[in-house]
Amino acid sequence: MTRLPPTDPGNGAPSAAAAVPDAGGPLEAPPSASRMRAYAELLIRVGVNLQAGQGLLVRAPIESAPLVREVARVAYRVGSPLVDVMWSDDAVTRARFELGPEGSFERVPQWRADGRLAMYRQGFASLAVVGDDPDLLAGTDPKRWATYIRASQQANRPAQAISMRDGIPWCVAAYPGLSWARKVNAGVPDGLAVARLWDAIFTATRVDAADPVGAWREHSQRLKALAERLNARRYAALRFRGPGTDLRVGLAEGHVWVGASARTPEGQEFMPNMPTEEVFTAPHRARVDGTVRASMPLASGGAVIEGFALRFEDGRVVEARAERGQDELDRILDSDEGARSLGEVALVPASSPIARSGVLFYETLFDENAASHIALGKAYPNTVGGGEAMDDAEAAAAGLNDSITHVDFMIGSAEVDVDGEFEDGRVEAVMRAGEWAG
Amino acid sequence: MTRLPPTDPGNGAPSAAAAVPDAGGPLEAPPSASRMRAYAELLIRVGVNLQAGQGLLVRAPIESAPLVREVARVAYRVGSPLVDVMWSDDAVTRARFELGPEGSFERVPQWRADGRLAMYRQGFASLAVVGDDPDLLAGTDPKRWATYIRASQQANRPAQAISMRDGIPWCVAAYPGLSWARKVNAGVPDGLAVARLWDAIFTATRVDAADPVGAWREHSQRLKALAERLNARRYAALRFRGPGTDLRVGLAEGHVWVGASARTPEGQEFMPNMPTEEVFTAPHRARVDGTVRASMPLASGGAVIEGFALRFEDGRVVEARAERGQDELDRILDSDEGARSLGEVALVPASSPIARSGVLFYETLFDENAASHIALGKAYPNTVGGGEAMDDAEAAAAGLNDSITHVDFMIGSAEVDVDGEFEDGRVEAVMRAGEWAG
Repeated sequence: MTRLPPTDPGNGAPSAAAAVPDAGGPLEAPPSASRMRAYAELLIRVGVNLQAGQGLLVRAPIESAPLVREVARVAYRVGSPLVDVMWSDDAVTRARFELGPEGSFERVPQWRADGRLAMYRQGFASLAVVGDDPDLLAGTDPKRWATYIRASQQANRPAQAISMRDGIPWCVAAYPGLSWARKVNAGVPDGLAVARLWDAIFTATRVDAADPVGAWREHSQRLKALAERLNARRYAALRFRGPGTDLRVGLAEGHVWVGASARTPEGQEFMPNMPTEEVFTAPHRARVDGTVRASMPLASGGAVIEGFALRFEDGRVVEARAERGQDELDRILDSDEGARSLGEVALVPASSPIARSGVLFYETLFDENAASHIALGKAYPNTVGGGEAMDDAEAAAAGLNDSITHVDFMIGSAEVDVDGEFEDGRVEAVMRAGEWAG
Repeated sequence: MTRLPPTDPGNGAPSAAAAVPDAGGPLEAPPSASRMRAYAELLIRVGVNLQAGQGLLVRAPIESAPLVREVARVAYRVGSPLVDVMWSDDAVTRARFELGPEGSFERVPQWRADGRLAMYRQGFASLAVVGDDPDLLAGTDPKRWATYIRASQQANRPAQAISMRDGIPWCVAAYPGLSWARKVNAGVPDGLAVARLWDAIFTATRVDAADPVGAWREHSQRLKALAERLNARRYAALRFRGPGTDLRVGLAEGHVWVGASARTPEGQEFMPNMPTEEVFTAPHRARVDGTVRASMPLASGGAVIEGFALRFEDGRVVEARAERGQDELDRILDSDEGARSLGEVALVPASSPIARSGVLFYETLFDENAASHIALGKAYPNTVGGGEAMDDAEAAAAGLNDSITHVDFMIGSAEVDVDGEFEDGRVEAVMRAGEWAG
């Protein structure tokens, strides 16, 4: 569970996909109104599972207005007293990092962070719509972005902490912005590129199923059964082996495998990511060793990191090389003390529906559901404790990592095996050639 | 000076013009990139006169993104450290008032009010882009809107007070949203309707002048000379006479006529409205008597008020009738104690360029520059004191009105005469048949 809402989807952080400044944000090749409505229904009824009387914060690129408008209508029909949209626009964001004056990049739109926190404290549900231009900041000075994102992550830390511990229902979903669609479907006309990305989103989110809500219920049960099977094993560590990869990931004490839906303390069930195909848990922050090669490129901070490998010693990254995007990789690792350790390990078979689509999405919300992955940075509090909520000190003692960042990257493929290691030294196959063993 | 920024252009208040929920906010008939850029330059360099190191808050409908993107680029080039955009969307706003649950309309997006205030206190310049759908809320229950706007005005009062006393540079400008363009240019194809409204905006804002900045300097000096001429007269009252109108408007003690540019306490000159053709001052809140008939319809709160007349006694509206939009007229008058008294009187000749265009804009930013007008509600502090800033008690003693609202409506036309009455009972002609006398 990995595709966090953007730290600040305001006009200080890339979050949308309208990088062509002269594009008026037109909707290319809109899907039928009924599919759009069905998608909005799914996000409200399954994604955040909005309750009557509950406010809704939507953070979204202006390009996604056709979806957001439907979402607002569904939310009000459900009985929400207030749907508030924090819109963002990639072109405005890019203007800053391209043209802003030196020395100004620590300034963050604090009111967005404050507003988000205030709404979370009032129990608002949170829906984030992503569709970033993977190349938004191409050609700008990466130091500007690094300075900014660090300040923004600090400003947003209190709100982010509430959502990461499932204090409110939250959901991240996608909208096919034009620039993103162009990146995913390179070389085809714009209208077709967007239409194909719509189809991929609708398929992956089961909008096209006869009964989408029922299909999600079934899917969630399947992932929960998988998580339960892993929970019953109580592995001490996982070992990943494949081309360029031999990595041992020790798991946190009392770790819990989680999949699909989550639940607020008040018992409101929600789906943090749509789509989702993963089960995941918490690594032990000091027990990760070896070398790992990313199996897919990673779009991050308006850049794309490609062909990268990391070496871990005692839980920390001690070496990091990328064929492309080294600056952004270094920026992530230098975010803070915890950014060099792992906060998540997730298992996804190489035959997952999203992997089978054969599409590289340049968007974690999708790509993490095509391959097993690990994440640098903060761990999810609900991945330790076995149902009992731990306080921060207990979580840290269990090995849970903390950081202002959380960045997933894919390490699984049909060439990667995963073993489970028990405390007593026994080993068993978990995945073989990217598929569940046994 | 009358077209205030919208109280809350967020998703609780109408402010944009994308009322067709399925419209993806496309730009119809975009103007050339160079005219759009010239418009953005003018708004930044003359409108808010942005200084290096000064932040900029833009409040704008998402439909206006092509303009806002240019504005952001100009602002960053000027040296702004942070351009933050509070976007809004009419369709999301309408969803609330159409579908929201009863009893929920007092809820306001407080973070928008708080953020606006925080930015003003940091000295941000403020640009509001308007282009409301005049009929946005047609068919919804006016009580919902009345409840909401009262709560929103209260929440926004501290920020609004800062801009009304020119504590920061602020500017209101227009963008031709599709719904607005359809209303103004009824019966013509969408592309043409928008193109015509663009032309009207560019003409009225002198974007098409050879030297737009120079043209504005000259225009501002002309209006300031007019204001000086009126200031030299020291009228005790103005009397308006025409069809359905015989209204005596007593002026505040120490009133000051103002036109065109304003100035912050730090001396930063700016242009609160673009366009502007008016000179205006403060009525005495207790010295207005008689009957006045509006000379143009008034678009307010997503409704259009037509064929309306007011009767004043001792400064207060004691009777108000509208052929259409009575609910909205009543809502304005019932906003608070001060909403039944006047906060502004402005003179505009019937031959003003905007009047001559023959276009009814359904938007105060334009229509108030086509005719003399008065405003119910709060007075501008800079319209009394003769250059000396008054404190609140002094301003009240001078007759300045206070309110959470400020709504202008047009009362001038080529059939209306205006007399100036001196303290000693002498009377002279100020306007005859809508034109300056002498």
